[in-house]
Amino acid sequence: MNIRIAQINPIVGDISGNFELISKTIISSPEHSIVIFPELAITGYPPQDLLLDSKFINQAQDAIKSLKSNVQKKVAIIGLPRYYEKNLYNSAVIINNQKILGYHDKVLLPTYDVFDEKRYFKSSNMIEPYEISLDGKVIKIGVQICEDLWDQNYDLSVSDELIRKGAEMMINISASPYRKNVIDKRLKLCLDKAKHLKYYFIYCNMVGAQDELVFDGRSFIINSNGKNKLLAKMFKQEILDFNFNQASNNKDVQVSSDVLEEIFKALRTGVRDYFSKTNFQKAVIGLSGGIDSALTAALVSEAIGPDNVYGISMPSKFSSNHSKDDAHILADNLGINFETIPINNVFNEFLNHMDVFFKDTQIGLAEENLQARIRGNILMSIANKINGLVLNTGNKTELALGYCTMYGDMCGALGVISDLNKIEVYDLAKWINSSKGKTIIPQNSIDKAPSAELRENQYDPFDYEIIAPLVDLIINDNMEKQNLIDIGYNEETIDDILNKIYLSEYKRRQAPPGIKISNKAFGIGRRYPIVNKYKGS
Amino acid sequence: MNIRIAQINPIVGDISGNFELISKTIISSPEHSIVIFPELAITGYPPQDLLLDSKFINQAQDAIKSLKSNVQKKVAIIGLPRYYEKNLYNSAVIINNQKILGYHDKVLLPTYDVFDEKRYFKSSNMIEPYEISLDGKVIKIGVQICEDLWDQNYDLSVSDELIRKGAEMMINISASPYRKNVIDKRLKLCLDKAKHLKYYFIYCNMVGAQDELVFDGRSFIINSNGKNKLLAKMFKQEILDFNFNQASNNKDVQVSSDVLEEIFKALRTGVRDYFSKTNFQKAVIGLSGGIDSALTAALVSEAIGPDNVYGISMPSKFSSNHSKDDAHILADNLGINFETIPINNVFNEFLNHMDVFFKDTQIGLAEENLQARIRGNILMSIANKINGLVLNTGNKTELALGYCTMYGDMCGALGVISDLNKIEVYDLAKWINSSKGKTIIPQNSIDKAPSAELRENQYDPFDYEIIAPLVDLIINDNMEKQNLIDIGYNEETIDDILNKIYLSEYKRRQAPPGIKISNKAFGIGRRYPIVNKYKGS
Repeated sequence: MNIRIAQINPIVGDISGNFELISKTIISSPEHSIVIFPELAITGYPPQDLLLDSKFINQAQDAIKSLKSNVQKKVAIIGLPRYYEKNLYNSAVIINNQKILGYHDKVLLPTYDVFDEKRYFKSSNMIEPYEISLDGKVIKIGVQICEDLWDQNYDLSVSDELIRKGAEMMINISASPYRKNVIDKRLKLCLDKAKHLKYYFIYCNMVGAQDELVFDGRSFIINSNGKNKLLAKMFKQEILDFNFNQASNNKDVQVSSDVLEEIFKALRTGVRDYFSKTNFQKAVIGLSGGIDSALTAALVSEAIGPDNVYGISMPSKFSSNHSKDDAHILADNLGINFETIPINNVFNEFLNHMDVFFKDTQIGLAEENLQARIRGNILMSIANKINGLVLNTGNKTELALGYCTMYGDMCGALGVISDLNKIEVYDLAKWINSSKGKTIIPQNSIDKAPSAELRENQYDPFDYEIIAPLVDLIINDNMEKQNLIDIGYNEETIDDILNKIYLSEYKRRQAPPGIKISNKAFGIGRRYPIVNKYKGS
Repeated sequence: MNIRIAQINPIVGDISGNFELISKTIISSPEHSIVIFPELAITGYPPQDLLLDSKFINQAQDAIKSLKSNVQKKVAIIGLPRYYEKNLYNSAVIINNQKILGYHDKVLLPTYDVFDEKRYFKSSNMIEPYEISLDGKVIKIGVQICEDLWDQNYDLSVSDELIRKGAEMMINISASPYRKNVIDKRLKLCLDKAKHLKYYFIYCNMVGAQDELVFDGRSFIINSNGKNKLLAKMFKQEILDFNFNQASNNKDVQVSSDVLEEIFKALRTGVRDYFSKTNFQKAVIGLSGGIDSALTAALVSEAIGPDNVYGISMPSKFSSNHSKDDAHILADNLGINFETIPINNVFNEFLNHMDVFFKDTQIGLAEENLQARIRGNILMSIANKINGLVLNTGNKTELALGYCTMYGDMCGALGVISDLNKIEVYDLAKWINSSKGKTIIPQNSIDKAPSAELRENQYDPFDYEIIAPLVDLIINDNMEKQNLIDIGYNEETIDDILNKIYLSEYKRRQAPPGIKISNKAFGIGRRYPIVNKYKGS
């Protein structure tokens, strides 16, 4: 008997394409296999409001029904949305030798952070194991879907209930997005459950990116004594086969724990899939000579190839020579296309025409933002002309503080590093240089003081060593003011940062989607009012 | 005995300000009053992820507790979030003569469209009437919160249960957003319930705007024979007093049914409250001479006064003379500030510098978008300089079709008419002229063929008489392709429109929040994936 985990990368809404992928995998699997696919494999995850379209659901259900005949002398377990008695469920179908043995409908529906499952699905109260028979062997399997495993904050444990009812082997099908250190949490949870099983705990996760989310894969099989038997790759499609009867043939695999490598692969996948799934090839990136744009360009080059990347340096009269040089050196190091388009004449032309509002006023925010927006215009124009996408280069710390210009440096189809704080930006840049064994990102971009260069002698008005972790404690960990004071932050600093975060909500409402790598990213999983007088203190 | 409905306009997050408003209203009400406030009156609605902040909740609960002493010889019913046994509830406190008589915690939690209540709140299963004693009279009141009334799609009816348990009078506290014809639905629901009551059905709604939402107020009291007794104003704060014992003194009020007047007031409120609640005074609007910007300018002038509005005409070489004239005439009619800033030189200066990408290419989308983005830059620059807000002038039909430019005409702090289809735009413009008894919006802006004027002889490539209602059937009514064919739409047209809607999701993800007047607006209540292969057919 063979267990096959199909760690696939479906595309949201591509029912026929996902059907092909699933069907092919089932047909190619050996007889007497249990073939396992991720949560909502037929629709991709998350389909969001497509789930409100009954035609979409019916197409997904029909596709799964038409798969039945391919499941000869095999068991297939596949995630799909399904109507049952007028309600919609997030389900797993269990097909056994051309017959639908039954369904497990998801019980625990996450409705926090990026998840809105109660918006769409009804929670099931049926928790029953299924008996499958393969190759003369009869096993009682418990099937569960993603959150069904994460039962710490619920009154009910799906795993416990399945085990109580006799499940000997557990199969969890997931669409669990990457965030730092998540693999440790998943393994710990499954190890706890596996102890009570006769056979294996099988965890099948989705892989690939969808808008803000990246699914990291890393599906695994562990045995009942809690030993780590097999682990699929991260951020790669993989068919993981496991011989049920020859456990000793399967070698243990250690979980990689280099978080920077994980983040690198997550972001590369996020960019790569955004391009491939929307059929774009070319990327346009503004290169300031600073660390954020340098890191972004390096990541995008890795994702779609340097030939497809256009780095544009757009110096103003405030741009230092070293900035221009650093941008050029970076482009050479990466082997990407590079052009310089100065903005000063356009800037002056704008000002000439706006004299009625600008004459005799103090130079300030309006002039600074205008420069950023001219750059945004240039990038968008080039992208329109070459049929490419602008990629956004902002980091999480500046996005939190509102230290960015709407329609200027905030433009782009996708935020590549928008969930990395400023310290992580430096760390990842250094990691790339080190892992490549040569300088990709110029040392000067790493060493110099960060500056927007929108006026003379301007430097970022933050000590990022203090501010970046503080912002993360507020955003990622939802830490309150008193706790921040208790761990040593200055009250005035905290108030200033809280105020900046709450006040800049209006900017983030119009920010591009950004690839999520933390437990709380800006974007669909964080929903704050714009009009709001509460400032956290 | 007196019933006072406090149809107030709280500000989200402004606990101390909302406290003052509530406290003042309670103190000023006569003895033997039941004073009723809307859902979550102490925090404003919807507080969104502020509800995840325990400090915020505790402040709200403390504020309500400190109100108790003001409730002398009165009953007060006030909406608040509250923790109870470690869960968060959307609650109504019932304070009777300085004592907390009890709470009603919301049972039915809307988790569709703009509502995410299951993200925050636990559903209560306690449904009990409370006995209050005032002025020697003892009444059993049933208290319910907003969705508790809208029980058609739930297995449980809170109203029926309260009536079954002896409720003689029903009090619903709501934060029910405006959408067209909603008052009829509310009245019908309450009339159905009121039949089974000994006394009145009292509906207390919030008023005022919060980001995308506008609460229309129109609180009411109807008696048990279903007669309409009193109706508060729409889109205005009002203290509505009703003498319980002298019902014959209270005159019937008819519900206004002019939907254009409703929309006008909704949008005016949406703009006015956005400015007042964020402490901005001045608005900047691009005036093309077309109908969308003309209507927007008229609405904004009504909301914040013409002196605070800056209309900017930004002609290009493709702008017709009549467009420039129409913009100027509109500004004169409204009495707003007006400036003309031509964009051609800036446009040419941009092109000069982008020769490497633009030379020998066909003039097309890139050049068109660039013009729109130059205009966006000018508006944002002026807004930054005068400390104002740019208001967005796009309508729902073009936003649906993606017939708009990101960072160009899509810029702005708030979409004023983004939930009006193109036909409604014309209708409302005509209504304004007619209700003012003079031409505010130039007849030429109403009569001429719509054009973006981004190239020679360009006219909008849509027959809006057909397309605008078709888009609304798809977006607002979620109507599927086959039904659209059945009611007479051409299949090719449907496919084209569906395709455009799905493909332009990436634009709308970065659109400004827009004031919602329909049952399904773009924005927080509509969540579609950007990467998506499903196109509705």
